[in-house]
Amino acid sequence: MGKSYWIWYPGDMELYYGMKQNFSRVERGFGWPAFWKSEGFRNRVAFRRTYQLKQETKFTVISDATGFVLVNDRKYPFGQEVICSAGEAVIAVHAGCIEEFPSIYIDGEVICSDEGWMVEDYDKPLVRVGFSKYFTSPTQRPSHWEYAEKTYMPVHIEECNGGLLCEFETELTAQIEVKFTDEKKEVRVYCGESREEALDREHCYYSWLTDPDTGRCPRCAVRFAFLDGVKASEVQVRALHQYVDIPVKAEFSCSDEKLNSIWKVAEHTFRLCSGIFFIDGIKRDKWIWSGDAYQSLFVNQYLLADKDINRRTWLALRGNDPMTTHINTIVDYTLFWILGVQVHYEAYADRAFLEQVYPKMCSTMEFCEKQLDDYGFIVGREKDWIYIDWADLDKDGPLCAEQMLLAKCWKVMAEMSRVLGFSDESYMGKYQALTAQIQKRFWDEEKGAYIDSFTSGKRHVTRHANIFALLFGIAEEEKQTSIIENVLENPEIPQITTPYFQFYELEALCQAGHLEEVLEKIKGYWGGMLDRGAVTFWEEFDPEAPVEEQYDMYGDRFGKSLCHAWGASPIYLLGRYFMGIRPLCPGGERFEVKPHLEFFENLDCRFPIADGTVRIKWDGKNLEVTADVPGGVLCLPDGSQVPLQEA
Amino acid sequence: MGKSYWIWYPGDMELYYGMKQNFSRVERGFGWPAFWKSEGFRNRVAFRRTYQLKQETKFTVISDATGFVLVNDRKYPFGQEVICSAGEAVIAVHAGCIEEFPSIYIDGEVICSDEGWMVEDYDKPLVRVGFSKYFTSPTQRPSHWEYAEKTYMPVHIEECNGGLLCEFETELTAQIEVKFTDEKKEVRVYCGESREEALDREHCYYSWLTDPDTGRCPRCAVRFAFLDGVKASEVQVRALHQYVDIPVKAEFSCSDEKLNSIWKVAEHTFRLCSGIFFIDGIKRDKWIWSGDAYQSLFVNQYLLADKDINRRTWLALRGNDPMTTHINTIVDYTLFWILGVQVHYEAYADRAFLEQVYPKMCSTMEFCEKQLDDYGFIVGREKDWIYIDWADLDKDGPLCAEQMLLAKCWKVMAEMSRVLGFSDESYMGKYQALTAQIQKRFWDEEKGAYIDSFTSGKRHVTRHANIFALLFGIAEEEKQTSIIENVLENPEIPQITTPYFQFYELEALCQAGHLEEVLEKIKGYWGGMLDRGAVTFWEEFDPEAPVEEQYDMYGDRFGKSLCHAWGASPIYLLGRYFMGIRPLCPGGERFEVKPHLEFFENLDCRFPIADGTVRIKWDGKNLEVTADVPGGVLCLPDGSQVPLQEA
Repeated sequence: MGKSYWIWYPGDMELYYGMKQNFSRVERGFGWPAFWKSEGFRNRVAFRRTYQLKQETKFTVISDATGFVLVNDRKYPFGQEVICSAGEAVIAVHAGCIEEFPSIYIDGEVICSDEGWMVEDYDKPLVRVGFSKYFTSPTQRPSHWEYAEKTYMPVHIEECNGGLLCEFETELTAQIEVKFTDEKKEVRVYCGESREEALDREHCYYSWLTDPDTGRCPRCAVRFAFLDGVKASEVQVRALHQYVDIPVKAEFSCSDEKLNSIWKVAEHTFRLCSGIFFIDGIKRDKWIWSGDAYQSLFVNQYLLADKDINRRTWLALRGNDPMTTHINTIVDYTLFWILGVQVHYEAYADRAFLEQVYPKMCSTMEFCEKQLDDYGFIVGREKDWIYIDWADLDKDGPLCAEQMLLAKCWKVMAEMSRVLGFSDESYMGKYQALTAQIQKRFWDEEKGAYIDSFTSGKRHVTRHANIFALLFGIAEEEKQTSIIENVLENPEIPQITTPYFQFYELEALCQAGHLEEVLEKIKGYWGGMLDRGAVTFWEEFDPEAPVEEQYDMYGDRFGKSLCHAWGASPIYLLGRYFMGIRPLCPGGERFEVKPHLEFFENLDCRFPIADGTVRIKWDGKNLEVTADVPGGVLCLPDGSQVPLQEA
Repeated sequence: MGKSYWIWYPGDMELYYGMKQNFSRVERGFGWPAFWKSEGFRNRVAFRRTYQLKQETKFTVISDATGFVLVNDRKYPFGQEVICSAGEAVIAVHAGCIEEFPSIYIDGEVICSDEGWMVEDYDKPLVRVGFSKYFTSPTQRPSHWEYAEKTYMPVHIEECNGGLLCEFETELTAQIEVKFTDEKKEVRVYCGESREEALDREHCYYSWLTDPDTGRCPRCAVRFAFLDGVKASEVQVRALHQYVDIPVKAEFSCSDEKLNSIWKVAEHTFRLCSGIFFIDGIKRDKWIWSGDAYQSLFVNQYLLADKDINRRTWLALRGNDPMTTHINTIVDYTLFWILGVQVHYEAYADRAFLEQVYPKMCSTMEFCEKQLDDYGFIVGREKDWIYIDWADLDKDGPLCAEQMLLAKCWKVMAEMSRVLGFSDESYMGKYQALTAQIQKRFWDEEKGAYIDSFTSGKRHVTRHANIFALLFGIAEEEKQTSIIENVLENPEIPQITTPYFQFYELEALCQAGHLEEVLEKIKGYWGGMLDRGAVTFWEEFDPEAPVEEQYDMYGDRFGKSLCHAWGASPIYLLGRYFMGIRPLCPGGERFEVKPHLEFFENLDCRFPIADGTVRIKWDGKNLEVTADVPGGVLCLPDGSQVPLQEA
C-alpha cells in the first residue's frame, strides 16, 4: 500500500479548526466568537495528478464530499474501486462541500493520496495539497479531530459552601463527569482555575449543567470543580482531560529546586496551551493571537520542537488572500506573523513551508505598505489596533516600536526571499530607508534612547521600542550601550508589567550578557507565582498585589487567565541562553552548546536540536555534553571549542 | 409585535443555497458539483443598531450561531429576554457559525429584526442586512428551506420490462415513494423524463434505491418511474412534488388551441425551473447559469412578476468581491449579469436592490477591463469560456458578439449610475469608444453584416453578433435594415439551433415587426415538441431528428433536458409583443398595451404589471382592456391612444 493521507486544499484544515478554536470561547453562559474577520475554507476544489503506470493498478477514493473521480475522461463515484490499465492516467477528483472543507483519501498501491497531489479552487493556479500526520486512516474524517484523553480522579474532595469541592492534581482542559450512585440527576458544576473561583457562584467564569445522559459538562479549563448541592456520598467525579499529544523533547534538572519547579510548571503551562494551535491561554479567550503565538515559537523550539503546530498556527492566523484586515485586528500582530516565518525557518529549515507561505508574506507586506506615511512609517487605519503592550505608550503619530517591527519585517523579507533564490534587493532597500528614518525621527540624543512619538513633542521614553532596537539589531553599538544604561537599567523608566513583554526584555538582557539579573528575575517573578500556589503560569502577576485581588484582570474578579502560554518563556531563556544551545544554520545541522555552568551546582538536562537531542550533565566538576546528531560544537568558558561526538 | 425577519449578511443566504443548488447534480450515481469557483458565505458577523427608546422595552435574540447580545456594554446570551430602559440603546449582536451562514431573529415590540439593521463582516463597512419573506418565524431556521409540497398519484401503471412503470400526469421535481403492502423492501427506481428513459436501466440518468425506512428516493426530475422487479399488487406508489410556491400572475387563452397548449406547457416548464433560483433545467445540471437566468428574467416579468427570485439568483451568481473568475467561467455570462440588473430595474424599479449590487456592477466591470485589448475589445484569458451559443462561430481574436455585449454593459453602467445620481460620464465615453471600434473592425460593408472575427481573415458571418447589434441598438438604422435582409432573412446564414439563442432572434424579429413569422415559429417549433408528446419544453429540439434519437444530447442517450427554462420564452414574446404590454418607465407606473388582435379570433388573458394586472378580452368584435392599477394607456391600431381606467 502507498502511504496515504487525507488531503485537502492547503490551509483549509487550519482555517476550519481555526474558526472552531476562535468560536469556542464561552463566558458565563454565552458564546463569544473572536471579534475579527474569520477566514473560511474553500467549498469546491479539484485534486489533480497524472500517473504514468507501468502496469494495471487499482484505487478507491473515499470522501464525504459531493463529487466524482475522473480518469482519462471516464467518471466514477466515490467509494468504488477504479481499475487503471498501464499507461497514462490523468486523474481529477472533484469535490464540493458546504459545512466543512472538502477532503479526500485515496486507497491504493500506486495511486494513493500522498503529498504529490495538486489541487485547485477554480480561482488560483494549482498548488500542492495540504495534509497532516494526524489524518492517515480511511476511517477517519479530517473534520473530526481525535484528541488524546487522560482521566483524572480528584486528589481532594471537600463538602463546603452547600456543595462538593473537588480538586485535581493540576490544571486541566477537561470535561467534568458526575455520576450519581442512585438515580441520574443534573447538577450545576462551577469550574475554577482557583479554589476561590470554583466557590464563587456569581463570578466563576465557567458554570455548566451536566448533560442528563452523559453526566458531563463541556470541556473547559479546570483545577477545582464545585458541584452545587451535592454530597460526597452521592457522586463519583472524574475529569476527562483532552489534549493533542505532542511529545516533550526536553528535560531540565539542576541543583536549584525552585528553578526545577519553574521548569515543570512552565512545561505544563505550555503543553496545555499547545493543542491544534498555539492559543493564548486555556481559560477565557482560547483564541489564536499572533503575538502570543510568536513567543510560543521560541518555547516550542526548546521544549517540543514540533514544527507541525507552528505550521498549523501560522496558516490559521494569516487566512486567505487578498488580505484586507490585520491579524487579530492588530498591526503589530501582522508584523509578528512575518517575523514568525523566519523563526520557524531558522529552527527547522522548513523550506516547503517557506515556499508555501512566501506568497502570503509578500501580500502581507503589500497590504502593510498601503498604510505607510511619507516617511515610510506604518500608521493605524480606523479600527486598526496599535497594541505593542498593555503600557502607557505615547501613541501620537507613528509609534516607534511599530516601526522597529516593520523594519525587522523588511529584513526578514530580504532574507527569506534570498533563501528561496529570489534576487530582489528592494527589501533591503526598504529596510535601510526605514531604519534611517527611525534613527532620524525617533532617536533622542539627549535621552540616549528612542522616543515613542516624534509628533507629540513629549519625547516620552518607554522600554518597548528600545528593547526591539536591541533585539532586532536596529540600534548601532554605541546606541545599544546607551539604551541599556538609560532605559533598561534606568529605574525611572516604567517597568514592564506583562510577562508578554518581559519575554522581550529578558531576551535583550540575555543578549547583553546580563544573565545573573535574568536568573534573579526568573526566580523572583516566576517563583513568586509558585509561592502563591500556581500550578501553571499566569497571564499577569504583580508581586505587590494583595492575595484577594490576585486573580483580578480586565475589571473581572476572575478575569485573569492562570494558564497562559507566554508565562512559559523561562524554558526558552534557560535553553537558549543559560544552556547556550543554538543552531548555527537553519535547522541546526550545525549547532553550538555554550552552557553557563557558573549559575548551577549541578545540572542534568536535554534539549531538542535538529531532529535529535543534546544532553548536558554537570556535577560541579565534570561536564558531559552529548548529542545524538552530528554537527554540534561545545564552547567552553575559556573560549575554546570542542566538536561534539555523536552518541 | 414588530415585524421580524431572520436577518443575515446580505447575500449569504443566496451563496449558501447557491452552493446547495450547484452541488445538487447527481448523474448515474455520482455527485457532480458545478465546475466553477464556489463562493462561500461569511462565518463571523456583527449586527448593529442604535435605538432611542421612549420607554422600557423587551426583546429576545434567537439564533443557532455562537454569540451574544451587547446592549450598551452589557452582554446577554441568546434566548434570554433583555430589558432595555428608556433612552439610547446601542445594540450589537455578535454571531459566528461554521457550517451555515450566521443569522438571527429578534422577537420584540420595538426592538425587532426588521430591515433597519446593519451588519458587518469585520472586512467591509457596515451594510444593510439581508432577509427574505420566506423566513419570518422564530421557529424557522434560514438554513432549512420550507418547500411547498403536493402529492401526485400515478395516472397510469403498467407491468412491463420486468417491473412496474408508473406515469404521472406531468413532469415533476419529486421524491418517489414506494410502500409495500407486505413487508418493507428496498427497490431500485429508475426516474425518467420520458417513458424510454425510465425503461432503460443502463442509460437512465437517475436511478435510486429507496430508503429502507421511508421508502423514498431522493428528489429528482420525474415523469415516469420504473420500479424494477416489482408487481402492481405489491406496492403503493406516489410522487411527493416539492417546489417554491411562486404565484402565477398571468393567464392566456385564445382561439388557437395549439397556442393555448404552448402557453400551458411553457408555464409549467418555467415554474419547475424557478425555485429558490432560476436554474437551467430540472434534470442534469440544475445549476444556476447566468445566461439562462438572464432569459428567465424576461419570462418572469410576464408570468410571475416575482422580483425576489431575480434578486436571489443575481446575488448567488455574482458572489463576493474581489471578483477573480467569470460567472460560470463564461465571459458572456458575466456580461449578461450586468445586463440583467437593468432588466430587473426596468421591470420593478427596485432601487434598493440596485443600490445593493451597484458596487458589484462596478467591480465586475473593473474585472472585465483587465482583459481588454488595445482596441478595448474583451478577449478570453486562459480557462475563460467564450461561449455565446452552441454554434460554429469564428472565435479567432476578439469575438464580435462578445463586444456587442460589452458595449451594452457600458451603456447599462451609464444608465444605472445615472439612476443612482452619479454623474460619471466615463461609462458613456467607454460605450462610444467601443461601438466606434466595433463599427470599424467588425462591420463588413460588402456583406452588409457584422463578421465574427476581424483577425482570422475569414469574414465569417453568423446571426449572433448581428442579432445583438439589433437588440442593443448598436447598429444604426441603415445597418439594421441591411442585417435583417442579409442575415436574418438570408437562408444561407446558418440557422440558430438552440432555443436559447432563438429567444434573441425572435425578439429581434418582433422588434423589426415580423410578428407573423415569429408566431409561425412559435407554433411550428414549440408546437413540434408538443406533437412529440412534450409536457415541458426541451433544452433543444430538431424537428428533423428521428424519434429514437430525440432525447440524445452531449453524446448521451438521455442527456437532453426535457424541461428547460429557456424553452418558456413564448410567454414573454406573447405578452411583450403580441399583447404589446410594456412599462413606459421603470416599474411600470406608466405602461402601454398595444395588442396585435389581427392574429387572434378571440382572446382572454391577463398579465402582471406594476404590482397589478392588466386584462385583455377580445371576442373578435369588441376589445375590453382593463387594469387594476393606474397609469396604463391602450394603443389602438389606428395609432390613437386611450388611457386605461383603473378597475
